[in-house]
Amino acid sequence: MEVLDAYFKLFDESRYSEESFEQLNALFSDDIEFVLNKQSYHGKAAWIQFVKSVYKSNKDLKHMYNGWVQNEDGSYETKWAICGNRFETGVYTQEGMDIARLNADGKIIYLENKPNDVTFFSGQ
Amino acid sequence: MEVLDAYFKLFDESRYSEESFEQLNALFSDDIEFVLNKQSYHGKAAWIQFVKSVYKSNKDLKHMYNGWVQNEDGSYETKWAICGNRFETGVYTQEGMDIARLNADGKIIYLENKPNDVTFFSGQ
Repeated sequence: MEVLDAYFKLFDESRYSEESFEQLNALFSDDIEFVLNKQSYHGKAAWIQFVKSVYKSNKDLKHMYNGWVQNEDGSYETKWAICGNRFETGVYTQEGMDIARLNADGKIIYLENKPNDVTFFSGQ
Repeated sequence: MEVLDAYFKLFDESRYSEESFEQLNALFSDDIEFVLNKQSYHGKAAWIQFVKSVYKSNKDLKHMYNGWVQNEDGSYETKWAICGNRFETGVYTQEGMDIARLNADGKIIYLENKPNDVTFFSGQ
């Protein structure tokens, strides 16, 4: 749970801190599968590219979340809310759910982002 | 404009900093009229009570805004977005507009908050 509780904080800090960005990426397995609105991506290189693309388009971003709860299948989930500020289009909000799985080493091996607005990542 | 640019930052910091809360309140005229979703309130005491009520129900709150633009009538306006986390109901978002006027002393004499969701302040 410490890994998942660190996740949103480190994601926000990665905007301005290379150290936090490295700590964020260290939370993930090299074999990470992450899913953005039903589109699946594989591997840590793809993850790093995703985070970089977020901060290429966002000059500010803040995550809040209700707290990770374990599901019967061993995965964890939490509701989240964000506000952000894109260089091109200005401020926005989004709400959604994340579902995460940890591997035996306590690294994130699966992370699914389910925004309420299904067009959300098309405007990332 | 410095007064208005300080406003959102000091509002967020007032959650945990008494000094920022005092700096926030010093931005306002004693004769402040503030309008929350068409409901009008008068005087700095009412303003202070409003901010305290926000942080009585919110354990976290973050404002972002596009930047204040002056209207032809001398007032200023900006689009804003927030994410917040209420003790009772968890995370949420909201977007809207603020309209502000400054008096001759550079204090905020009028502040209108127009959330996109007209039920927003009923759940403050």
